[in-house]
Amino acid sequence: MDAVPLPDGFSAHVANVGIKDDTDDFVVLAATGPCTAAAVFTRSRFAGPSVVVSREHAADHRLRAVVVVSKNANVATGPGGLADARELAEGVALALGCPATEVLVASTGVIGRRYPMDRLRAHLRSLAPWPGPGGTTDDAVRAATGIMTTDTHAKIAEAAPATVDGGTARVVGIARGVGMIEPDMATMLAFVLTDAEVDPGTLDAMWRRVVDRTFNSLSVDTDTSTSDTAAVLASGAAGAVDPGELEAALHSVCLDLTRQLAADGEGAETLLTVTVTGARDDGQARRVAKSVLNSPLVKTAVHGADPNWGRVAMAVGKCSDDTDIDQDRVRIAFGGTEVYPATVDDTGLTALEEYLRGDEVSIEVDLRIGAGAWTVFGCDLTDGYVRINADYTT
Amino acid sequence: MDAVPLPDGFSAHVANVGIKDDTDDFVVLAATGPCTAAAVFTRSRFAGPSVVVSREHAADHRLRAVVVVSKNANVATGPGGLADARELAEGVALALGCPATEVLVASTGVIGRRYPMDRLRAHLRSLAPWPGPGGTTDDAVRAATGIMTTDTHAKIAEAAPATVDGGTARVVGIARGVGMIEPDMATMLAFVLTDAEVDPGTLDAMWRRVVDRTFNSLSVDTDTSTSDTAAVLASGAAGAVDPGELEAALHSVCLDLTRQLAADGEGAETLLTVTVTGARDDGQARRVAKSVLNSPLVKTAVHGADPNWGRVAMAVGKCSDDTDIDQDRVRIAFGGTEVYPATVDDTGLTALEEYLRGDEVSIEVDLRIGAGAWTVFGCDLTDGYVRINADYTT
Repeated sequence: MDAVPLPDGFSAHVANVGIKDDTDDFVVLAATGPCTAAAVFTRSRFAGPSVVVSREHAADHRLRAVVVVSKNANVATGPGGLADARELAEGVALALGCPATEVLVASTGVIGRRYPMDRLRAHLRSLAPWPGPGGTTDDAVRAATGIMTTDTHAKIAEAAPATVDGGTARVVGIARGVGMIEPDMATMLAFVLTDAEVDPGTLDAMWRRVVDRTFNSLSVDTDTSTSDTAAVLASGAAGAVDPGELEAALHSVCLDLTRQLAADGEGAETLLTVTVTGARDDGQARRVAKSVLNSPLVKTAVHGADPNWGRVAMAVGKCSDDTDIDQDRVRIAFGGTEVYPATVDDTGLTALEEYLRGDEVSIEVDLRIGAGAWTVFGCDLTDGYVRINADYTT
Repeated sequence: MDAVPLPDGFSAHVANVGIKDDTDDFVVLAATGPCTAAAVFTRSRFAGPSVVVSREHAADHRLRAVVVVSKNANVATGPGGLADARELAEGVALALGCPATEVLVASTGVIGRRYPMDRLRAHLRSLAPWPGPGGTTDDAVRAATGIMTTDTHAKIAEAAPATVDGGTARVVGIARGVGMIEPDMATMLAFVLTDAEVDPGTLDAMWRRVVDRTFNSLSVDTDTSTSDTAAVLASGAAGAVDPGELEAALHSVCLDLTRQLAADGEGAETLLTVTVTGARDDGQARRVAKSVLNSPLVKTAVHGADPNWGRVAMAVGKCSDDTDIDQDRVRIAFGGTEVYPATVDDTGLTALEEYLRGDEVSIEVDLRIGAGAWTVFGCDLTDGYVRINADYTT
């Protein structure tokens, strides 16, 4: 993958500190000065110390760096694990010469195991004075690779909104996560950096809207991680951008990352999108879309390239609290071809099977009640998913 | 399997009418006179005509027969499908010489295809005068086999509560269902017959309590069928039974059937039970237990015999609306061996792996909040599940 430079005012430090093996497992994304920031986190009742510390640090919308430890989630590790997370933030802050409250901490990997703090401490000491002997890179690809655990490839997306003074800002995002993915407030890990200038309130509001329609509309396996974190940092180096244009750029980057995450879902062979229209409201559209997206019977039908609309009908039907859903009004389509209530002939069936063998499959449901609409992103369910997760060791 | 006689006052007619292949696909369970009855049905918004008609017929708690068509669900078949279901009930009623409103109709199999009504009509005509040339059987095993679609074996359970006059009544249940199983008001299909005498109000109340703790606590794949029906018919031939004793017998039979259904879940190799105690109330206990039972990551860990309690913690944690769940109070155990927060040594780990390789695995979660408790029943997630459902044709 070609290098993707980080936006103005950011650099990355990527290294191996021996968390699990000899691949990169330690990443710091750092700005030259404090940034305007917004972040959302998992709502899990088993949220890890990284999330606890980061929620505190992001509260004032001012961040300078993000430190990511991969292959150890530091979750369910008790008071010791919380102290470890605080020490990690302090070590990075010391190297950068900023308050610890300007450092976000993120960590994914095995649950229930403490960090190897001796190695982390030694590495943190080597960072001061910043950037230390390990040096820094401005390549987002190296950073995206460094935050991977079981991802099969790095996930990067970028956009370039115009600034109000006629220049160009940049938005660069990286993400990781292939399993334990049904983010509630965020995805596993996603970090978006921009050199656009934006005020904290505007950034926070647009970030929540963008995350809702992208990472929060993603599900690989219905399982919500204890470590979900999605943050945006704006350095302001490129100057002000029209808020609408910035939000569109953020949306484009996050949507791109969401689709990459869905397509790389554990064992996934097909990117599956489900769009529900004609709902009472957007909430109902999302609920029904998630029900279809998460149905193991729909996911295996997609895997088997079987245009089995009966399973889609079943998954719509099990939204039993939505009593305004009327099976005689609902319409179901695959890739724009209506399959219910319309009947598909043998030629059409062959064409549908061909469509379902593609890399991306879209299922569309029109409830014909109102104007609510939502699209969600996921993948098929394969024997690869079972194999990966039956064999992965604690 | 040895024959299991039906309770006094019941007989069964089992036949092949050529719905899909040459195995039995048509079953009538009939009483010699009207029975006291109770029934619960799927809450699906795509409930099939069988459920629509049966809900009407069961409303007065008086039933004489149940007719089951296998391998065709008669779901999403429009007004024609509804007329077919009514004609089926009428045909059975004519043969038995009872009102059509005393006949329950149940059907499971492929969605979206009409019955072959010509063959069904011819067979219905041959039933009068009852039992017709096909004859009847008093063997519950034959009836249980006749209602199977993709089940790998017939499911039968029985109990024998004492009557108040010193005799013995009998309770015999049959059930089917291996996939599309997360019953909301009932399971796929379950019919329990008893010769005990009981009044309609008592029977209805105890049936709902029993179903709630048995079939409604079952999930193979989180997918709720469009055809779920669970009914009990009491002929009264054996005389009155103490209500507590009858409820215990019904519970025992339904629990046995539920465990058989879970163990025969599509592709299942392990029966998985999850028990949550110490919850705020029973509802919270059930919600958390279902979250663990339905987690694909927990299900694959069980399949891989991996005592991965981190995934159980994750599944408890994703019940994010239950803000009183405190990760520092929760306790997690496998088969009675605490794994969180207690630490298991290497010897203990080997013993746990051995335990997880067994035919049945129990996961216990103690929330340590209150006295609510619930047990749910399911199975592991295997490549067999994926293979069955990616290959099964519409």
